[in-house]
Amino acid sequence: MSNTTLMIKSATDSWFQQISRTDKLIDSLTDEQLESEIAPGKNRGVYLLGHLTTVHDRMLPLLNFGNQLYPQLENIFLTHPDKAIIDIPLTSDLRKYWNTVNEALASHINALQPEEWLHKHSAVSEEDFKKEPHRNRLNVLLNRTNHVAYHLGQIVFLKK
Amino acid sequence: MSNTTLMIKSATDSWFQQISRTDKLIDSLTDEQLESEIAPGKNRGVYLLGHLTTVHDRMLPLLNFGNQLYPQLENIFLTHPDKAIIDIPLTSDLRKYWNTVNEALASHINALQPEEWLHKHSAVSEEDFKKEPHRNRLNVLLNRTNHVAYHLGQIVFLKK
Repeated sequence: MSNTTLMIKSATDSWFQQISRTDKLIDSLTDEQLESEIAPGKNRGVYLLGHLTTVHDRMLPLLNFGNQLYPQLENIFLTHPDKAIIDIPLTSDLRKYWNTVNEALASHINALQPEEWLHKHSAVSEEDFKKEPHRNRLNVLLNRTNHVAYHLGQIVFLKK
Repeated sequence: MSNTTLMIKSATDSWFQQISRTDKLIDSLTDEQLESEIAPGKNRGVYLLGHLTTVHDRMLPLLNFGNQLYPQLENIFLTHPDKAIIDIPLTSDLRKYWNTVNEALASHINALQPEEWLHKHSAVSEEDFKKEPHRNRLNVLLNRTNHVAYHLGQIVFLKK
């Protein structure tokens, strides 16, 4: 296995491990638990689930994998804080969106050649990328892996 | 910049970013805030600070960087849960240990050649490493980066 292949495998394994932990946690929680605040006055579990779903959905265009699947989630779960928008999707639907988005990402992640992780992401211009070659897909993946770990550490409070 | 150098830079940048965020958060909290529970009935901030410190301290031998600096923290902050051991270090001392451990790690991380991240970590035998080359230093670094992000997501609750 080449160095590049080995390094990318570590990074993608780390991503899939966090997704799998988050899946297990969310599956173990009832809708009622998810709809509660993670701590008094803090975000509800369902908000964090929607937030992670829309952040992962946005990775599809950012990594040049394709279009967002659920652009309507962005306004509710990213632009606005929890409880700012009353009319949010059913918890059962959010669970489906979460799985669908991560499955779409997984199929692209698994199909990418190791070197392609060093290609630029879509939010940087060709010109800037020449000067800042670290603004690549791998960087997005590592950043979003930390992001899901951060919120996983919060959603876990809903577990009795 | 070679592919290997670029990939390792992404991974170490990601580590230093999480450390820097955690530093800023901890520095912004008073001792009294750190000594409170992050949520009712959950770990105290000071326990999580000690826990992160001892986990990072253990990275020194794990990454073949040298000996642990504060082995006495392990029993309090890793083997036992919060409040199991009454006599814990002063919060002001824990802040110092946290900084000292991360500075020791940083000097080794910055001195390592990119390829050396693919060397085995100390908890895997030469024999197993031949079959499982992903059990390398990079893997430890990515794993511990997620670990600090996970607890950062919890400590942030102490912020008013």
